[in-house]
Amino acid sequence: MTQTIDFQTDPSKYRHWKIDYDGPIARLSMDVDEKGGLFEGYELKLNSYDLGVDIELADVVQRMRFEHPEVKVIILQSAKDKVFCAGANIRMLGGAAHSHKVNFCKFTNETRNTYEAALADSGQNYICAVKGACAGGGYELALACNHIMLTDDSTSSVSLPEVPLLAVLPGTGGLTRVTDKRKVRRDLADVFCSIEEGVKGKRAVKWRLVDEVFPNSTFDAKVEERAQALAASSTKADIAQGITLTPITRNFSDDAVSYSTVEVALNRAAGRPTVTVKGPSDAAPADMDAFTAQGADAWMLRCARELDDAILHLRNNEKELGLIEFQTQGDPDLVIAHEALMLSNADHWLANEVTQYWKRVLKRIDMTSRSLVAIVEHGSCFAGPLAELLWAVDRSYMMLEDFDGDNRALATVTMSEGNFGSYPMGNHLTRLQTRFLGTPEQIEKLKSSIGEPLEAEDADELGLITYAFDDIDWEDEVRLFMEERASFSPDAMTGMEANLRFAGPETMETRIFGRLTAWQNWIFQRPNAVGEEGALQRYGTGVRGKYNMERV
Amino acid sequence: MTQTIDFQTDPSKYRHWKIDYDGPIARLSMDVDEKGGLFEGYELKLNSYDLGVDIELADVVQRMRFEHPEVKVIILQSAKDKVFCAGANIRMLGGAAHSHKVNFCKFTNETRNTYEAALADSGQNYICAVKGACAGGGYELALACNHIMLTDDSTSSVSLPEVPLLAVLPGTGGLTRVTDKRKVRRDLADVFCSIEEGVKGKRAVKWRLVDEVFPNSTFDAKVEERAQALAASSTKADIAQGITLTPITRNFSDDAVSYSTVEVALNRAAGRPTVTVKGPSDAAPADMDAFTAQGADAWMLRCARELDDAILHLRNNEKELGLIEFQTQGDPDLVIAHEALMLSNADHWLANEVTQYWKRVLKRIDMTSRSLVAIVEHGSCFAGPLAELLWAVDRSYMMLEDFDGDNRALATVTMSEGNFGSYPMGNHLTRLQTRFLGTPEQIEKLKSSIGEPLEAEDADELGLITYAFDDIDWEDEVRLFMEERASFSPDAMTGMEANLRFAGPETMETRIFGRLTAWQNWIFQRPNAVGEEGALQRYGTGVRGKYNMERV
Repeated sequence: MTQTIDFQTDPSKYRHWKIDYDGPIARLSMDVDEKGGLFEGYELKLNSYDLGVDIELADVVQRMRFEHPEVKVIILQSAKDKVFCAGANIRMLGGAAHSHKVNFCKFTNETRNTYEAALADSGQNYICAVKGACAGGGYELALACNHIMLTDDSTSSVSLPEVPLLAVLPGTGGLTRVTDKRKVRRDLADVFCSIEEGVKGKRAVKWRLVDEVFPNSTFDAKVEERAQALAASSTKADIAQGITLTPITRNFSDDAVSYSTVEVALNRAAGRPTVTVKGPSDAAPADMDAFTAQGADAWMLRCARELDDAILHLRNNEKELGLIEFQTQGDPDLVIAHEALMLSNADHWLANEVTQYWKRVLKRIDMTSRSLVAIVEHGSCFAGPLAELLWAVDRSYMMLEDFDGDNRALATVTMSEGNFGSYPMGNHLTRLQTRFLGTPEQIEKLKSSIGEPLEAEDADELGLITYAFDDIDWEDEVRLFMEERASFSPDAMTGMEANLRFAGPETMETRIFGRLTAWQNWIFQRPNAVGEEGALQRYGTGVRGKYNMERV
Repeated sequence: MTQTIDFQTDPSKYRHWKIDYDGPIARLSMDVDEKGGLFEGYELKLNSYDLGVDIELADVVQRMRFEHPEVKVIILQSAKDKVFCAGANIRMLGGAAHSHKVNFCKFTNETRNTYEAALADSGQNYICAVKGACAGGGYELALACNHIMLTDDSTSSVSLPEVPLLAVLPGTGGLTRVTDKRKVRRDLADVFCSIEEGVKGKRAVKWRLVDEVFPNSTFDAKVEERAQALAASSTKADIAQGITLTPITRNFSDDAVSYSTVEVALNRAAGRPTVTVKGPSDAAPADMDAFTAQGADAWMLRCARELDDAILHLRNNEKELGLIEFQTQGDPDLVIAHEALMLSNADHWLANEVTQYWKRVLKRIDMTSRSLVAIVEHGSCFAGPLAELLWAVDRSYMMLEDFDGDNRALATVTMSEGNFGSYPMGNHLTRLQTRFLGTPEQIEKLKSSIGEPLEAEDADELGLITYAFDDIDWEDEVRLFMEERASFSPDAMTGMEANLRFAGPETMETRIFGRLTAWQNWIFQRPNAVGEEGALQRYGTGVRGKYNMERV
């Protein structure tokens, strides 16, 4: 599995999903092409999925918000007879490297979180109509919807058979949503997660596993009725026309990936790619009409899409590059002006979508299992949404005062109103709140500096950066840090960063990525799952896994 | 490392700790005997510790509360020159099986949590006086104290060098307490966890790593001053006389461990030990004077100590026994009466200590990485504190109506006031609140049944048990469950239970056991740490670990 994984797609290329748009209601049907696996060696039977299927789903969810703002209710359903979805493809998992398993789960989790949040963020409400077997990752698809309807027939059930069948966890949020979202009683959850064939009918409602169950004869009508009612009671404004997410501009070469606003220098020898975000070169659009006319070309949206793709590319296709260095280039005033148009039009649907998208991209960075550093050079534009990078990374270095022979504008950091609430982390706090958990009074103090370009001494004094170095020390200090980081165990970094980045309250989202994912990753290393006699390897052979029964 | 680990000790046997009692102040000095390791193959140099050192510490903390209730402030310090504590012994960790590493960390974490909570629970305040190097697990010992004082000299620093030196995490709460208790800014935490030599002096205070720093010349006097001030301002009542924790009665045989109130049938062939708790046989003591006179012989205290020891024994010495079956035998009214004396004297120091101890024992059960089931037979006494077992386990089976030839009293469940607040879980909710997270109104409803012996039908209706079966189905159903559970992967069970048992809010405690421990366990499986060329194996050889640089 060493081929390059491309996260860009569009409806003309979909092989696994069909969408029927019908005014405020969209019917999203899973119809996985058995022969359409991303890799060789497995067939995607029974609506089972691999990363390719999920890349399409993520694209659907994203386009729904920008291209189809008229949609208020999405019915997630299956186009196959007798099966809703059999979950992640087991042969794919069995053959995948540990790192692919982990990154596959991370991306699918991000996609589930994204459509789960679509109601709160965009007024788009995902409901799930389950006909046929809905197993494992299939039920996890349903769990991320806000309302689950199940038909009552002999083949339709919901189940999480991972533990008994495969000796792994339902790792795409399944266990967490069962306890924390559906609030299933824990002994019933224990029973449910042990039953291969799952739970059906009224018992599924009684156990809180689904919201409603109906006989087959009335099921479709009831689903329609619920969707119409939810659309009618929606508070989402009627938007007639979306914008088109045109293909992003990319150029891959041996040592770089170039976008229009993002430049990734891979720097493979050092294992340390530099992601340079370029600020806007033109003035901000005059108003939201002008912004809408620019559409996907507008800097705020284009940059978010390109940065998102760059992060996904590095995560999945460049796993040996362990330290990502963020830089920016441009005019901080222009970044602030482009962001300001979004913030001052927060009730405009497109401004809202763009801001929500920045929130998601920044969360994708938080969740990226690489060491992250921001290098604040002269000529940079760490302002507004780009200033968030300073607090998403593990640490930051900033140029202090003039550098010999460097005539770029002095390095500054500029906070905006957006930094105080527009881009919350998975823990539901802003990055600044998380950063100053021990000194919350600092937040009020920082607000008095909104809009002010802060040079290194001030930024350091306010705690916005980790280190400021002048021309004499800069090169050595940055180099020493890079060399030191490169000498550490990547696994220890992964574990350390997963613990240090998310101080403060835990949410369902942080529990999925922290607790559930960590246990799943542990199990993905254990011989009882992945060894030659482990359940994941033996699945489908007719022989059950052979287990070392020692508990740890 | 297959020798039996004994968790019972007493001051006459201590090899690693010295205590000086001085009225309200106790000085607890770590003075590890290099030759006193629990196993062969390593020396406990520089106040490094293994499980044996921690078993003594747990005993100190426990006896402090029962035998020395006059103590209000405990000064944790080192008896060695130039070193406070070097942390967990690396050679011990390098040589230990995965399961021993995990269980070692679990027990040390429980001990840290216990003395950290001693101020809130018992009014005993642990403060830490750091002179000399305080590294890794050493700093984690300090972090669990409520106030950390550091001397300012060339050798004294605090550090978490695990990541750079050993490619593992500071796993005894270190990362979690740095972010969530000390609320260290995350980029500074990132720097701190990367610096082998640690942080000293005023910088340690500025970064919130310690509370105070003083020059060597005034350090001892300042520590004394703080201790005296904290003792003087303590709201803990003056208690002149404690009770003695006399040795518990145990008898080990090949297939059983017998205590006076707890019987453990190991049932090794089936991998399924039965822990039977026997209720009191005598009436409850008339009042707290009578209870105090009974001291460690009083059923409420004796039973807690024996159950605690039994759990620790099973966890550490019987790792292949994957399903623990809890039973009880006795008169529920007597259990309720014995508990009632504690609850109605909640402001009596000893009643409080006994209740707090039950809280800890029950949390130890929650955290036990075995499948847990309660079997509620006729003649049982699942009442008050023993009823908590029903909601600590993963599921429960209860006998319904008369059984042929069984003339024991019909099985009942009896709730007490204690079930509604006296024994909170690590998530700070009661087990009933956690159980009914989805239907919180149920809690009020349950209160109206306090004191009522509920037979199976009622207990089932109220959601207090998982299953009720009559004479016809009982044996088959229980047997099927046992067989099914025995067929599952122990690792998948561990991961599943760690996710299902702790619904609701996360606390520092649940984060330590959920997020931090899970990541550490993952790292404890990774070749970069534990492989032949991994950092943990190579430590002390002068050669650094060789890492596969792929990030996952």
